[in-house]
Amino acid sequence: MRATLYHAPGEVRVKNVPDPVIQQPTDAIVRITHACICGSDLWFYRGFDGWQSGWRMGHEWMGIVEEVGSEVRKIKQGDRVLAPFGFSDGTCRYCGRGLQTSCLKGGFWGGAYNDGGQAEAVRAPLADGTLVVVPDSVEGDDAMLKAILPVTDVMSTGHHAAVSAGVQPGATVTVIGDGAVGLCGVLAAKRLGAERIIILGRHKKRLDIARHFGATDVVTSRDEQAVSEVLEMTNGGVESVLECVGTKSSMDTAISIACPGGAIGYVGVPHGSETINLSQMFLSNIILRGGIAPVRAYIPELLADVVAGKLDPSPVLDLTVDLDGVPSGYAAMDAREAIKVMVRL
Amino acid sequence: MRATLYHAPGEVRVKNVPDPVIQQPTDAIVRITHACICGSDLWFYRGFDGWQSGWRMGHEWMGIVEEVGSEVRKIKQGDRVLAPFGFSDGTCRYCGRGLQTSCLKGGFWGGAYNDGGQAEAVRAPLADGTLVVVPDSVEGDDAMLKAILPVTDVMSTGHHAAVSAGVQPGATVTVIGDGAVGLCGVLAAKRLGAERIIILGRHKKRLDIARHFGATDVVTSRDEQAVSEVLEMTNGGVESVLECVGTKSSMDTAISIACPGGAIGYVGVPHGSETINLSQMFLSNIILRGGIAPVRAYIPELLADVVAGKLDPSPVLDLTVDLDGVPSGYAAMDAREAIKVMVRL
Repeated sequence: MRATLYHAPGEVRVKNVPDPVIQQPTDAIVRITHACICGSDLWFYRGFDGWQSGWRMGHEWMGIVEEVGSEVRKIKQGDRVLAPFGFSDGTCRYCGRGLQTSCLKGGFWGGAYNDGGQAEAVRAPLADGTLVVVPDSVEGDDAMLKAILPVTDVMSTGHHAAVSAGVQPGATVTVIGDGAVGLCGVLAAKRLGAERIIILGRHKKRLDIARHFGATDVVTSRDEQAVSEVLEMTNGGVESVLECVGTKSSMDTAISIACPGGAIGYVGVPHGSETINLSQMFLSNIILRGGIAPVRAYIPELLADVVAGKLDPSPVLDLTVDLDGVPSGYAAMDAREAIKVMVRL
Repeated sequence: MRATLYHAPGEVRVKNVPDPVIQQPTDAIVRITHACICGSDLWFYRGFDGWQSGWRMGHEWMGIVEEVGSEVRKIKQGDRVLAPFGFSDGTCRYCGRGLQTSCLKGGFWGGAYNDGGQAEAVRAPLADGTLVVVPDSVEGDDAMLKAILPVTDVMSTGHHAAVSAGVQPGATVTVIGDGAVGLCGVLAAKRLGAERIIILGRHKKRLDIARHFGATDVVTSRDEQAVSEVLEMTNGGVESVLECVGTKSSMDTAISIACPGGAIGYVGVPHGSETINLSQMFLSNIILRGGIAPVRAYIPELLADVVAGKLDPSPVLDLTVDLDGVPSGYAAMDAREAIKVMVRL
């Protein structure tokens, strides 16, 4: 089959690799129909995090089950399944608490050892714990399938930010970042009942989507200027901040715009944000909560809302490519010409 | 009257100052009967935080009301009152949420502008919002008054650490630090129903008190060694960590011993802990919650338990001095010869 491989900074390649086969009785082989390129893939693409040539790419995908191992019970050949960005057994003590990203037997798609989603197929370990069956009713509905796809990561990650920030009905919320996760954070905050949603971002097209998703206010300045604008707009800070970037600048901003007792839900992968103003947090009892989103825990409720027509994150997928187009998709996201790329196989 | 003043690093002096007088109709004048020296006073004493010569010292105190301003309604002359380490109006939006340390009109005892508690008397602003009346029944009971005194700060701060760390009945908890706050954290965790309480500390006398307060395990090593011991003892980390020191080393330890999804309740005043391992927190969804303790919110329940004989933090007060003895009390705490000093006037 063909799969996307990391090659060097700024270069991914679609190459022939061996077809995946069942290795463990808990595995499934899934033929990919839809995948995405993620903003977090760009960290690797740009040469951060020690990614090595030949590693598999892609952790957001949906497809049709081709084969299951002898111990797979819930997932059947022919099922359309949705995967969170990592696999998990569903039975360990962390899975039991809804923290499948810390599964004692789990792992993540792509890299040196596992198949990636930007490919024709994947071997999915721990299929029963990991995969979620998509209802038959949506088959053939391309718009619906596109709306479901972001639940694999960015929609669930935006939701994790909102949950971690303690968004309550009627709340005033600020979302930092207008990438796909930030935009989904707006949607998630709206879904949880936030009344006022302020987004910090700088790209008109993205901010238009933010407004469509429920943002009531837009702040296009940065750093101190953005902080003073938000503090003035909110009379002293917001209860819930969704930090959807991961840089030092965005974390500093998050801490500075949180009101005393407020919570920061942080889901931006930390890059340079290790030096945080703990003294400022201390004096105002600001809570820092979040991390890598346990997407598997959130898929059932979010998928149900998408299928019911109550939730539609698909506008974040503003460019579609086929598998051969994946390298150009990376380039488009790297150049910020696309918010998020869908790979349609 | 006489009051304790900061003079220079390593030196405080008890000097004559003007008697306090009512300045605002919401003030009360309180004659001090008991005060403490706090571990956090040592930061100033040691020359940190820019403390200046002549500033008033002491933020933990109890006394008898001598006079009240014309708008004071709840507090009356002759009442024995307990003060949290800051004052607050009790009516602003943050006080209403139990976050009196962020009171919009509030402040803290001591320093350049406010009276300190290591003195014969104080002017207490916002008396109705700040002060809590101690029941008459305890009058004359010296042991009980000594047990009540730590509720002004260290007992309530230990409780804040435990609440912030989400201590649940039956939980396994680790307390970092065997100072007065750490020891009170043990007591607070026990009171909230923790089943296993591991304390990290190095001083035999303090660890004996920790055991008396409910610690089930003691770890006397530090840093990596302590981390590996706690991870082994707990099969992978603890749900609730009480960080009661505030240094980089203690915060690193806290992050490393928290299990995935665990919470760190941090109450150690940050000194050098601004560089935290956010990537490690991110990957395990570790929650950081806490800060300066809103003691005023906790006093009613903790005071009630002390008065009922169900809670006794007095063993942390292991040295008593009179007002003239305050400088020697600081020296004893600085040399770690005393855990915490009571000033009896």
